[in-house]
Amino acid sequence: MASTTRAAMRLPASSIAFRATSRRQIATSSQSFLTPARPSSRILLDKSKLQQNFHRSYADIAPAKKPKRFRFFRFLWRLTYFSAIGGTAYLAYGVYDQKHPDDQFEPDPTKKNLVILGTGWGAVSLLKKLDTENYNVIVISPRNYFLFTPLLPSCTTGTVEHRSIMEPIRSILRHKKAAVKYYEAEATKIDPERKVIAIDDNSDIKGASNKTEVSYDMLVVSVGAENATFGIPGVKEHSCFLKEIGDAQQIRKKIMDCVETATFKDQSPEEVARLLHMVVVGGGPTGVEFAGELQDFFDEDIKKWVPEISDKFKVTLIEALPNVLPMFSKQLIDYTEATFKEEKITIMTKTAVKKVTDKTVEAEATGPDGKKTIQIMPYGLLVWATGNAVRPIVRDLMSQIPAQKDSRRGLAVNEYLVVQGTKDIWATGDCAVAGYAPTAQVASQEGAFLARLFNTMAKSEAIEHQIHDLSSSLNLQPGNTADIAKEIEAHEKQLRRIKDIKPFHYTHQGSLAYIGSERAVADVSWLNGNFATGGGLTYLFWRSAYLSMCFSTRNRVLVVLDWLKSKAFGRDVSRE
Amino acid sequence: MASTTRAAMRLPASSIAFRATSRRQIATSSQSFLTPARPSSRILLDKSKLQQNFHRSYADIAPAKKPKRFRFFRFLWRLTYFSAIGGTAYLAYGVYDQKHPDDQFEPDPTKKNLVILGTGWGAVSLLKKLDTENYNVIVISPRNYFLFTPLLPSCTTGTVEHRSIMEPIRSILRHKKAAVKYYEAEATKIDPERKVIAIDDNSDIKGASNKTEVSYDMLVVSVGAENATFGIPGVKEHSCFLKEIGDAQQIRKKIMDCVETATFKDQSPEEVARLLHMVVVGGGPTGVEFAGELQDFFDEDIKKWVPEISDKFKVTLIEALPNVLPMFSKQLIDYTEATFKEEKITIMTKTAVKKVTDKTVEAEATGPDGKKTIQIMPYGLLVWATGNAVRPIVRDLMSQIPAQKDSRRGLAVNEYLVVQGTKDIWATGDCAVAGYAPTAQVASQEGAFLARLFNTMAKSEAIEHQIHDLSSSLNLQPGNTADIAKEIEAHEKQLRRIKDIKPFHYTHQGSLAYIGSERAVADVSWLNGNFATGGGLTYLFWRSAYLSMCFSTRNRVLVVLDWLKSKAFGRDVSRE
Repeated sequence: MASTTRAAMRLPASSIAFRATSRRQIATSSQSFLTPARPSSRILLDKSKLQQNFHRSYADIAPAKKPKRFRFFRFLWRLTYFSAIGGTAYLAYGVYDQKHPDDQFEPDPTKKNLVILGTGWGAVSLLKKLDTENYNVIVISPRNYFLFTPLLPSCTTGTVEHRSIMEPIRSILRHKKAAVKYYEAEATKIDPERKVIAIDDNSDIKGASNKTEVSYDMLVVSVGAENATFGIPGVKEHSCFLKEIGDAQQIRKKIMDCVETATFKDQSPEEVARLLHMVVVGGGPTGVEFAGELQDFFDEDIKKWVPEISDKFKVTLIEALPNVLPMFSKQLIDYTEATFKEEKITIMTKTAVKKVTDKTVEAEATGPDGKKTIQIMPYGLLVWATGNAVRPIVRDLMSQIPAQKDSRRGLAVNEYLVVQGTKDIWATGDCAVAGYAPTAQVASQEGAFLARLFNTMAKSEAIEHQIHDLSSSLNLQPGNTADIAKEIEAHEKQLRRIKDIKPFHYTHQGSLAYIGSERAVADVSWLNGNFATGGGLTYLFWRSAYLSMCFSTRNRVLVVLDWLKSKAFGRDVSRE
Repeated sequence: MASTTRAAMRLPASSIAFRATSRRQIATSSQSFLTPARPSSRILLDKSKLQQNFHRSYADIAPAKKPKRFRFFRFLWRLTYFSAIGGTAYLAYGVYDQKHPDDQFEPDPTKKNLVILGTGWGAVSLLKKLDTENYNVIVISPRNYFLFTPLLPSCTTGTVEHRSIMEPIRSILRHKKAAVKYYEAEATKIDPERKVIAIDDNSDIKGASNKTEVSYDMLVVSVGAENATFGIPGVKEHSCFLKEIGDAQQIRKKIMDCVETATFKDQSPEEVARLLHMVVVGGGPTGVEFAGELQDFFDEDIKKWVPEISDKFKVTLIEALPNVLPMFSKQLIDYTEATFKEEKITIMTKTAVKKVTDKTVEAEATGPDGKKTIQIMPYGLLVWATGNAVRPIVRDLMSQIPAQKDSRRGLAVNEYLVVQGTKDIWATGDCAVAGYAPTAQVASQEGAFLARLFNTMAKSEAIEHQIHDLSSSLNLQPGNTADIAKEIEAHEKQLRRIKDIKPFHYTHQGSLAYIGSERAVADVSWLNGNFATGGGLTYLFWRSAYLSMCFSTRNRVLVVLDWLKSKAFGRDVSRE
């Protein structure tokens, strides 16, 4: 402070003038910006007395006018600046890397055939971590892309475009070190006796070869599940499911079809009410998120472009259990129900659908007194977002294995995900019964576990091979046996360590759901407890969590762009 | 200069030091930037002698170190900077404006019913310029969006996503001053006697009211044309057309289906060759652009992700005329043919398709000697990009009007686009025969002409009404007759001027076509001549021309984003 005063006495007006102008210059132009002298200028300025005086007055006073909080802002600005540069560089590298795969080599044909059925969460998570050079890997699936299912409800209204959450399996496989074969086909039958799988190209365009067999040494079944209709009449014929991209596209088209049909000439008020009544069956995250997205779409977009129907849109969510989102904690269920009330979404719990016709849903509601009442609701669009059924190929495999005769919901697997009653067949995800919920999170962890298991198996086999070779040489050359024996012992120790792989154990990371009007609920595992939160900030968390879970940089960028697009331009109301 | 020297003598080292540091500071940090003092600081600095000296030395020397070219760069930078700010603000305004339409009023029910059939180029161009407050406007079309057809070939490979070139008709109509009714329905019959149109909601979801009649006072038929197969057997069953969004999506799915089927297990080399042979029929801009996009897709993306088929992909373009792109000048046709040769696209001119089966195309080629040879080509995908046929509703209308009995290709119209033999029916675009090519450019100009015509008609009717009122008052109040007579005369003059509307005349702006590998050809009308150009720069011109022709800011931004996306990430090879 002393030096400041001294300098200020020497050149008092000058320093004041500088202080006054510098602030104004900052405000008026980015070019006129005055800062304290830097070390480099200090050296140059040390040339003459006057100059030094001036310099000192200027340099010493300067800090006085930049209190610490400015420094802090400067630091913050630089941090942001460099983070932005770093982030962009990282992103650019990610994009470049994904677009330029290295050359692949063909795996050794003498290695084991590892066949993976499916391109869902389990299969792709396995493929991501698998060292493909240890096996002849063959992937078989009728769908040549991985689908990021958590964002599928957003696709039904165009908040996210469907291609943004798809990652071509060709791109995933092309990035592996060793080449992986892919056949776009439906696996129709597994023969565990002959160790072959029958496959069938059931797409529109068929070649001369369209049905054949693929033999396996090791098989992973990750085919997922079908939609369950629980034998309720009319569900299959009249409702939309929400499992694949095609389902989301169909729903998107039908929403707009309902709106356009409701505005057709001379439509009666009852018909308008029916056409604009959207019924969602299933109060799990998919059903809840879809209901929320639907109401958003209507409130934010349809209302604006088709004002004549603005007070006639209605969403109803039907759930057979006493609550929606049963995997969430009580307060989040209450929060969701309160939010839905605000959004004017009707929730009907303890209500079981009994029958569906082309224009009505018949449901049986159980009142608080246990009394059952039948309700018939006319609807325009019915979305069935509940229930998993076993796929025919899995049912067929189960019927061939006596140990599976008591299993109902899929292939019973042991703690290493080996299908019980078989050798060399593993199962993951919704087609496997390992005691966990049929979620993407479980399937993904199972796939990653199998990748570790298979990598370890390959490693231990290689070491066993080495031990075998060393043992042979021990017999052949009777020289330095002690050294070889030691080496064998080291290898065996390594082998024991590798083989000591722990059984699969699922770690629940938490549950997330979007509930409409930019709010979400989250039940996240935190240390040893749970962290339950709901609202607008949770919505940001929901977005960033889903974004970080996307398969590739490409997906992430596209999803962010879609969010920005639907924010800036609104959702598209074209029926397509 | 004198003052500079004097000042430099007074504070020589200081000024040098400042000059040295200022440059370095510019380079190292945006915060340390020293500029000549501004008027505001000059006033403040005038407080003491020393200070003034310092100031002058500093201020006067400064300009000497900034030569003119730096000034130029500074000017250029500022220009760029302000243009960027201006551009962004303009864009943001465009986006905001489109998302926030004003309230609309219901038009006077006593006004005339103006019914417009269609949402293509003609109809939308008419709607864009029409003052809807003068009529009760009703738009009827089975497609509730406008499609920017010139970019449709880019949609088949995913260079552009289909939603980026669609603009919802609801958004177009919502921005008109007076409300416009829209019915999503197919017009099935026009009855010019009763002046009614039969409409039919033929989408999946139907209400109780799904077939009805709409009456008109004035009718504009802009329903376009169908795909013509010229009665060639098998075309309808086995080929894809390229007219609507659904066609582009189907082609996109089939390209990947061919690729996946070609890599199916044990596919024979002949089958692989067949499946990867893509045949395009029609050498107009659509066919040529599609062939170019297809080859791009293969070279830039498919080859990389599915390397096993890298030398087996083949595109063939079949054209019955002696040349592709007949509307272009000779040198551009040669350039296109040479470029296609480079890209390994086979062009077969003077070749007429005779028969199509599910796996082969039979074509008759006429050799240079006039000899005809039959070729049978196995194919994987066949795209039919040629020929327009009259739609059933138009054919039916023609059959009801004796004056149309000699017209074959559509509704013969007079120079005001009135359908010959009718009153109050106009026609535009591909369903009208006005003596021009069936292009978007013609339809668009015709639509704009009708808008001017209808606006004028409304204006003149209003003036006629005024004249009538004035004449009546002339009879009623015998006072200032001279004034009223003068007013009537002025109105009549105005009326003559308005009624003097010139007949429709088409102004050809030019032809553009993308021909693959980032090259395009353009034949642009320039002053009184033609300007023919082809190559990479023309490609940039092609892009900017198409961009400027997009319907809305939203479309423009989305198309640019799609171009950037497909550049950065490549095109998606998922079959969907």
